[in-house]
Parts: sequence; structure tokens; C-alpha cells
Amino acid sequence: MQVWKDYQAENKDRFLDELLALLRIPSVSADSRYNEDTRQCAEAVKQRLQEAGADKVEVCPTAGHPIVYGEKIIDPSLPTVLVYGHYDVQPADPLELWHSGPFEPVIKDGNIYARGSADDKGQFYMHVKAFETMNKTNTLPCNIKFMIEGEEEVGSANLGIFIKDNKERLKADVVLISDTSMISLENPSIDTGLRGLAYMEVEVTGPNRDLHSGVYGGAVANPATILAKMIASLHDENNHITIPGFYDKVHNLSDADRAALNAAPFDEAEYKKDLGVDELWGEKGYSTIERTGIRPTLEVNGIWGGYTGEGSKTVLPSKAFAKISMRLVPDQDWHEISDLFAKHFEAIAPKSVKVKVTKHHGGSPYVTPTDAVAFKAAQKAIHSTFGKDPIPVRGGGSIPIVALFEKELGLKTILMGFGLDSDNLHSPNEKYGLANYYKGIETIPYFHQFFAEMSK
Amino acid sequence: MQVWKDYQAENKDRFLDELLALLRIPSVSADSRYNEDTRQCAEAVKQRLQEAGADKVEVCPTAGHPIVYGEKIIDPSLPTVLVYGHYDVQPADPLELWHSGPFEPVIKDGNIYARGSADDKGQFYMHVKAFETMNKTNTLPCNIKFMIEGEEEVGSANLGIFIKDNKERLKADVVLISDTSMISLENPSIDTGLRGLAYMEVEVTGPNRDLHSGVYGGAVANPATILAKMIASLHDENNHITIPGFYDKVHNLSDADRAALNAAPFDEAEYKKDLGVDELWGEKGYSTIERTGIRPTLEVNGIWGGYTGEGSKTVLPSKAFAKISMRLVPDQDWHEISDLFAKHFEAIAPKSVKVKVTKHHGGSPYVTPTDAVAFKAAQKAIHSTFGKDPIPVRGGGSIPIVALFEKELGLKTILMGFGLDSDNLHSPNEKYGLANYYKGIETIPYFHQFFAEMSK
Repeated sequence: MQVWKDYQAENKDRFLDELLALLRIPSVSADSRYNEDTRQCAEAVKQRLQEAGADKVEVCPTAGHPIVYGEKIIDPSLPTVLVYGHYDVQPADPLELWHSGPFEPVIKDGNIYARGSADDKGQFYMHVKAFETMNKTNTLPCNIKFMIEGEEEVGSANLGIFIKDNKERLKADVVLISDTSMISLENPSIDTGLRGLAYMEVEVTGPNRDLHSGVYGGAVANPATILAKMIASLHDENNHITIPGFYDKVHNLSDADRAALNAAPFDEAEYKKDLGVDELWGEKGYSTIERTGIRPTLEVNGIWGGYTGEGSKTVLPSKAFAKISMRLVPDQDWHEISDLFAKHFEAIAPKSVKVKVTKHHGGSPYVTPTDAVAFKAAQKAIHSTFGKDPIPVRGGGSIPIVALFEKELGLKTILMGFGLDSDNLHSPNEKYGLANYYKGIETIPYFHQFFAEMSK
Repeated sequence: MQVWKDYQAENKDRFLDELLALLRIPSVSADSRYNEDTRQCAEAVKQRLQEAGADKVEVCPTAGHPIVYGEKIIDPSLPTVLVYGHYDVQPADPLELWHSGPFEPVIKDGNIYARGSADDKGQFYMHVKAFETMNKTNTLPCNIKFMIEGEEEVGSANLGIFIKDNKERLKADVVLISDTSMISLENPSIDTGLRGLAYMEVEVTGPNRDLHSGVYGGAVANPATILAKMIASLHDENNHITIPGFYDKVHNLSDADRAALNAAPFDEAEYKKDLGVDELWGEKGYSTIERTGIRPTLEVNGIWGGYTGEGSKTVLPSKAFAKISMRLVPDQDWHEISDLFAKHFEAIAPKSVKVKVTKHHGGSPYVTPTDAVAFKAAQKAIHSTFGKDPIPVRGGGSIPIVALFEKELGLKTILMGFGLDSDNLHSPNEKYGLANYYKGIETIPYFHQFFAEMSK
């Protein structure tokens, strides 16, 4: 719509400046040292929503980081879209690998470099600006509700409680989220599913204290060695996961669905070049697209034990630790998988060590119905600004609360992401394309327009 | 000798205070942040040697931490004993496990708790006080030279150069070192051998940056997982080391020697209780005494990679690291073993990762001839103060430069240690028994006396 184009053209620079200001707030939810910044970020989001024209905007306290809520109800008889996003970000370390400060956004080669630029500040903020566009031009076609949380990167532990306590307030017809990526601006795509997550931490204890590796070496189980052996045993020679029962509930796609999935553009040479690896790695019998989309995985996210400082120390450590997470697919249940992992990990521990397994957090996998009105509206919106239909793909990441929306609110979720896999999410030098940011702001109003029309 | 007894009784408290003062200096050689403290510790050692009556005392600069030299030549025709020790200490971390400050010595239950109390400040300082005893009572039976270095805990890289450059100054008949332990004060023992050491660091690189474990998990080799698999493969199901050629030069003891070795008192139940483990672990077919004394070992001293901070981070790390050291036995060469390790570790790395192997440092194993005059003198000295003959045992630790003394100076070394295996060397709450300290000061003069007499 021309009025949207004009309004967005006039306010282009401000739209960017406001995002940069948000990116300067280090709202790292996993690290309690940033709790005050995280709270300030919530206040900033509240103010931006009010300025955009939202009503009843509120920073809702939780047992953890607060949730920002706001809404614009123009006519209760019209459809309502619930926009979800998160203002918290991943930790920035390893800091030394960043080319510029993670919280000092820099624009370079058409990209915004900053922690949270793509995940998810840059993406949820597109919705705030799209809403502002429709609101200020008096073209809002439906009701909109915003729920922007601050604990997505640490498992959204308190969002579930908030949703249960606010079912009436959150009543809507569909949930709209931009927290995923598309193949490219030339090949727009929509995620039709997400993997679930089960995040565990393990502690292996050998001797009751660090020992001299010369005096005791060879006579006492070294927890680092034992942990290595245990981790090594979690994948077999075909890179299948060896946890008993792990695959029992995995829903296998039909050959037709697999073929459709593999039809998406994928350049293995380019993929390897981008990652700097000579060879890919993964579960035997599946393509890379399948390995990252429809197959469950188990990854070591962190491992540590013994002396890791400068120089050398001839110590036989008392303890070794690892953070291990599993990505789940329909119909795996993350509680069940967490239990299977814990049971197995304890079972394979030799008598010479003690093992402690802790559940960090998790979430269930999700699949979007491609025949739903909202999905069609999203397709049409993307077509109207990209000039082509989006390719349906399965996302490898997890947004645990998507399954929660369905369970608690009975709502389907549309995953209309505008990022790229190469945006370095969770990595140093996270970036988000300026073009992606503006394209998102341009596309989102069409979703609301088409969804309102097609819902009649 | 009564004069020794009297002198030591009169100066008992000062002997302790002086040691405590040395222990308050954090001379951590591995950590450059302590370089100034380490230098100050060398100056303190110099002053103590001068006060004890040594001549030509000098802090000799090296490319690393300095070496303190001092001597007392009473008659060139008499035998000369070269006393070696080290004033540097291991890093103190993990600090949170110390009951009192590692550099704030505390006397509790008859023990001195402090980093370096047993390894090696408390032990080399016994020689300074034993020398003072003989010198001040005009009973010095032979010439004594002191060489106290500051890089033993980081591989004595510069000591070799110093020895090559000072062969004349270091001329002696035997090297005497107290940097090992005995079974107990009730069961005195002398180490008749030491294991060698080859200390390596490995770096495994997967993707060129940390990745989102959801977006890429399952499609790219995780360096932490690969490192775990590689480490796991270094021991087989019998805990034999799998590096090709590793055992080729291992000198196997005769059944008689093994029997003699296993005759030493060893209480497995007590050993397990002390370490808090339900089961011991080690190479099949060998006893604990053999596993820690006459068999080579491979231990992970440290491992790290990915996110090791608070909370969770769903990252697929770019790199994973490990510090791995091997204890060597006669006739393994540490350079050769280091090369075998590097070659093997690179060979077992899958194409999907890159591996970098670095040599930290090492040293050759050593065996003391039990028929040497100096060894007999040490046995007699211990008998005269403990009332029984010491049990000959093989020490599991390494003092790399012992082999160097033989090679460069043609000198045998006597390992007359007064510590205990339970002194928490290289661990939190390192301790040294007051009784051990004073017993050492009491015993050492007898060594010099008997060595002088028996050398005639």
C-alpha cells in the first residue's frame, strides 16, 4: 500500500536508530550480572510500544525477567493477531572473536553487527514498526497484541506461567513470530516446523580432590577421560544417537515429504566454504537439510574440567563437566527424552566415578499446518513484497513456547522469519541485514491485511 | 650428633617462621601474573642461604625465572654434594576448594597448609636449615652446593642451559634432592626411580566460528564431540594406551623386582577411602603400586571448549582443547613419545576437523642405583633418625632434570623425600607435616656425614 511505503520511507532512519538503541542494552538473560540491563531493556520496549500507539502497555513482572505486553483493539469483532518476540539475547562470549563490541552496533556492508540484531531484537522490532506504520496511517486491518519476553534464550521458564494466568488477555486467532530465518532474500522461505530441545548438564566426579597426575596417574579414574568416553559413546559409527528409546517416537516423513524438503535450494560447496570445513558430518542416510530439519540431534555445547589456564599443570582433576543439548522432532517429548538421557548417562558411568545429571530446560517440537488461513496469508504477504512464493522449510532451531501456545491458548503459530542462517546467531559477530530489517517491516502489514480479509 | 640436636632445638621456631615467610610469596611459575612474586621469592632464598653461611650466593638470571646458586667449599679434597630444589610452585586454583588461603600458611593438626609447603619450599628449605646446623656448629663434613630453581613446575626449560653453562661451578660427587615422598614416618622409604613426562596440548577445530546448535546441529562435526571420541580412543578396554609404539621401549621388571615392589605396605581400602572412590581404575594386569610406579600412563590434565559459563547456551563450538600428559618409564624417550603422540593424534582426526598438537614440556625417566655409596649413605642416615631401613620404592612423579644431571654432569641423584602422597601436591590444601619438616632437618646432616665417611 502506498501510504505504508510513504510512511516507512519518511521514517526509515528513525526506525534504524531506535533498533540500534535497543541493541546497545546488554540484555543477556543467562547471566545474572546483566539483570539490571535486562530490566532496562524491558522498560525501553514498553516505551517504544507506547510511542507506536499500543494501549495497556505494561512491564509484567515474573519470577525471572519481565514480559512486556501491549495491545491495540480496534474492533473486537475483527480477528486478533498475537505477536510474540523476545528482547533477551545470548551471552556474547567468546568476546575476543568479535570484530566490534557486541553491544556497540556497527553498520558494515549492509549489515547491523550486534548481539541480538537478528535474534531477536531486530526481528521483533520489525513488528513494532509495522504496527506503527498501520496505526499512524489509520490502516490497521485487525487487532494486535504484543507479548515480548525476556527469557527465550534461557528456556522461557516463566512465560508458561504468564500465559496460564493471562488466557483472557492473550485471546487471539493466531500467533505471529519472526525469530527464524529464510534461505535468502532471493529465495524467501517460511519455517513450517521447529525442533524441540532438551538441554542437560552433566557432572562426573572421580577422586574427592584434584590429584598429582604423577603420584596417582594410572591408578584412579580420571573424570575427564571417563566423561570423554561417555560422550563418545552417545553416537555410534553412523552418528546415530545411542540412548535407548531415543528414536522410538520420531515421526518419519514420507518419501514425498522428504523429496519436497530436499527440493529446497542447497549448495553444499558453498555451505562448507562458509563454515570452513573440508567435510560435513552427520547421521548416515540423511541429507544436510534433513539432518538440520527433520532429524533429532545431540550436541556438546560446552565441556570443561581440570586445568584450563596458561601453561601446564600436572593435575588429575576431581571433576569434569559438560553441557549437552538434544534437538527433538515430532513426536518426541522433551521431558521423556531428558529422562531417557539421564537414565542412560547414569547407566553407562563406570563404578569408579560418580555422575550427576541436571536438566537445564527444554521445549517440544512444532509443525505449522500449511493449509491454515494464517499460513496462506503469510505466503501471500511474502509474495506481494518479494515477488515470489516462499519455500516451505523445516527449521532446525527451537522456540519452545510455540508448542505452549497451542496447548494453553489453542493457537497455531506462523513463523515468518526474515533472518539468514549466516547471521551468526549465538555466535560472535551476530548480524542482521538492513535489507532484511526493512523488508520485514514492509511485509508484515500485508500479513495483517490478508489475514483479516481471508478470515472473513 | 648432640650439637645438631641442641642447635636445632634452640632454633626450632625460627626454622618454621622462615619457612612460613617463604610460603607467603606466591611464586607461581606457570602464571606470568606472578612473575614479580617469583623474582622476589628468588631474592628471599638468596638471603636465607647467605644467612645460613653459604658463599658466592647469587640470583642467576635465565630466559625465564632465575636460579639461586650458593656454595660452601670447606676443603676441595672433600666430597661435594649438590643440593637441588625449586622455589616455584603450582598454580593454586581451584581456589574455592582451599580451606585457607594458599599463600597464607596455616598450622593445623600438625600440618603446614600452603601451596608449596611440601612441593618444594618445605623440602628444599630443610636442606638450608640442615646446612646452617652443620655450618654454625662447625661440623660440616663435606662441601655443599645449592642450586634452587624457579621453573620446575613448568618443565625446567632454562635449567638445562644453566647447567651446560656452569659445569665447572656445579662440579660435585652426587646430587641430593628432597622433592618426593615417603610411605609414612612409620614406614620411611626412598624413591629409587622417577617417571618421565611428556606434556602435550591439543586443539581441535570444527567450523570456523561458534554456531547455533539448532541451525547447524547434526550437520557439522562438533569439535568437543570429536575431541571426546579421540581422547576416549587413547585407552583400550584394558586401559592400555593405544598410541602405536608407545610401549616399544618400556623396560619390563623381572618377577622378582615386581614382587619386591609389591612387598611395600599398601592398604587399598584406606587408599580408596582417602580418595573417596568406590573402585580403582588402571591398566589391566598391574597392581596400584605398579600402575603408579613402573608403568607409563596417559592423563587428561585439562579439557575445555564451548560455553562453560552460568546457565545454558545452545552453541556448537568452533574449537575444543585438552592438556594431556604422559608419565614415562625406563627406557622411554620423552621426545620420541611426544612425536608418537602427535603423529597418532593427527592420524585419528576425522577429515571434518583440523587438529593442532603442541608440546608443552617433558623429561626422561630415571632410576637410582641402589648399590651406590650415596644411596647407602641415605639409607644409613634415615636408619639413624627413623630407627629402621627405608623401603625402596618407585616414585610416580617426575623431576625431569634428574636425567639431565646424569647426562650433563655425570652425577647420580639421591631422592631423599620426606613428604607424603597425601600432602595434596598440585591440589587444593597442599600440606606438609611439621614432624616431616623437622625430621628432614634432623636427618639430612647424617647423610652428609655418612657420605663423607663412606666416600673415603
